[in-house]
Amino acid sequence: MPVPALTAEEIAELLHEVFPQAFYPGCGLSLERVDYGDVRVRRAYHEDYIRPGGTISGPTMMELADFAMYVAVFSAIGRQPLAVTTNLNINFLRKPAQADLIADARLMKVGKRLAVGEVTIYSEGSDQPVAHVTSTYSIP
Amino acid sequence: MPVPALTAEEIAELLHEVFPQAFYPGCGLSLERVDYGDVRVRRAYHEDYIRPGGTISGPTMMELADFAMYVAVFSAIGRQPLAVTTNLNINFLRKPAQADLIADARLMKVGKRLAVGEVTIYSEGSDQPVAHVTSTYSIP
Amino acid sequence: MPVPALTAEEIAELLHEVFPQAFYPGCGLSLERVDYGDVRVRRAYHEDYIRPGGTISGPTMMELADFAMYVAVFSAIGRQPLAVTTNLNINFLRKPAQADLIADARLMKVGKRLAVGEVTIYSEGSDQPVAHVTSTYSIP
Amino acid sequence: MPVPALTAEEIAELLHEVFPQAFYPGCGLSLERVDYGDVRVRRAYHEDYIRPGGTISGPTMMELADFAMYVAVFSAIGRQPLAVTTNLNINFLRKPAQADLIADARLMKVGKRLAVGEVTIYSEGSDQPVAHVTSTYSIP
Repeated sequence: MPVPALTAEEIAELLHEVFPQAFYPGCGLSLERVDYGDVRVRRAYHEDYIRPGGTISGPTMMELADFAMYVAVFSAIGRQPLAVTTNLNINFLRKPAQADLIADARLMKVGKRLAVGEVTIYSEGSDQPVAHVTSTYSIP
Repeated sequence: MPVPALTAEEIAELLHEVFPQAFYPGCGLSLERVDYGDVRVRRAYHEDYIRPGGTISGPTMMELADFAMYVAVFSAIGRQPLAVTTNLNINFLRKPAQADLIADARLMKVGKRLAVGEVTIYSEGSDQPVAHVTSTYSIP
Repeated sequence: MPVPALTAEEIAELLHEVFPQAFYPGCGLSLERVDYGDVRVRRAYHEDYIRPGGTISGPTMMELADFAMYVAVFSAIGRQPLAVTTNLNINFLRKPAQADLIADARLMKVGKRLAVGEVTIYSEGSDQPVAHVTSTYSIP
Repeated sequence: MPVPALTAEEIAELLHEVFPQAFYPGCGLSLERVDYGDVRVRRAYHEDYIRPGGTISGPTMMELADFAMYVAVFSAIGRQPLAVTTNLNINFLRKPAQADLIADARLMKVGKRLAVGEVTIYSEGSDQPVAHVTSTYSIP
């Protein structure tokens, strides 16, 4: 496997620089592991994410999946903050626990124009996925 | 077309009651029109939604689409706050303006177990869609 | 609306020339209407398409949707047989009748690199859709 | 992992019994491995599948993915031929070789009403996927 184009620290700095509304100290998002096209990110639990039924809302998981893909794209193609999502498909599989969410993103294709990946989301402490995502990014 | 199961006012009250973290005075979401399985909602523009490139972030549009579907499901089947998304697929079509987002949701199927709909999102003042969504809700 | 880049007759000739295994006299596929990025195609009923439960198989509808998109792409960008599907998402809505299938395809975006459209499939004689598709084609 | 509800031989017999138009001696589809919710199937290469550009057509891969999911559902829930696809999302990743296609299907959720899985398709002899699918089956 190639080495990642950027390290976790470099990606965190880039995110804070270009997307300060979403990624700042205390935002609850963190990068746990960055390999080439293969990353793990975390969303700290917050009661604001709860929806009726006592479960974490769908948009919280969609945002986390999109974030995980963004990080995975940087890990493969480097500093390209204008890469944008063109498609995202999510299946909700199980009711998440009231706990941190862990998202594993893995690119299946890194082309010149498109990167395609999948993201699996877990509640911390469980190995049963709560959601599964496939997504395509367009590379400028 | 049947009459809606709930009016816009009844749905707004229900949302505020069951989902107060997401729907409260000043949250920026509003219901513009509610017919049976066919609704329009609005997300007021806020600079926090901007992502690199000066465009509104993908998760902002995904959240709005999911909200529009939730309202459309209520308009067809009534007070069922435990209805949950099982699938959402979004295609991003154009760079949105720095303006309010309007989402039109329309159910294509209202079954006993599943409701399936599509959502088209526009920037206020434009008739070219910025995103298109299909989504399935599971009905308890 | 712009005029279509190719007429129905020109598209039928192109299909027969470049894709003779799929489109030939008696293949059961026909072009009913071709406007710019907005077409209607038909699949004649054949008992080979029936699956358990007495309904038309999913792959029969997926193939028809992909064909409808291919025709819609030609109607907008002209003779580009190397345009290829990059994504297709289908929701099955109702059990189709044992009858012809009609597919209406409409492009929502015609960009330089990608075309995105939706396809709605009906059983002949019904106005309730049996399946809904969104799809992206990559333009060479 | 639980034992499969049906063996490969039992599933092949069931398919031939309930779906003889699609699964018959010489049809080109075969079951290579059946574990619980985790199967491998094969589509023998045939020149009829070629589309412009010398590549295997999208519908050939969609049909194979749907077949792989059908087999995976049987492996988990047993003799339920009326299980039907409700959603299928496919991303085409690379141009397939003119060779057999191998599809690995794996269920991510087996619920009372829905089964959700993913399918990865390869050209024989390559470990780079040519297509990736997620799909939902409704269980009667």
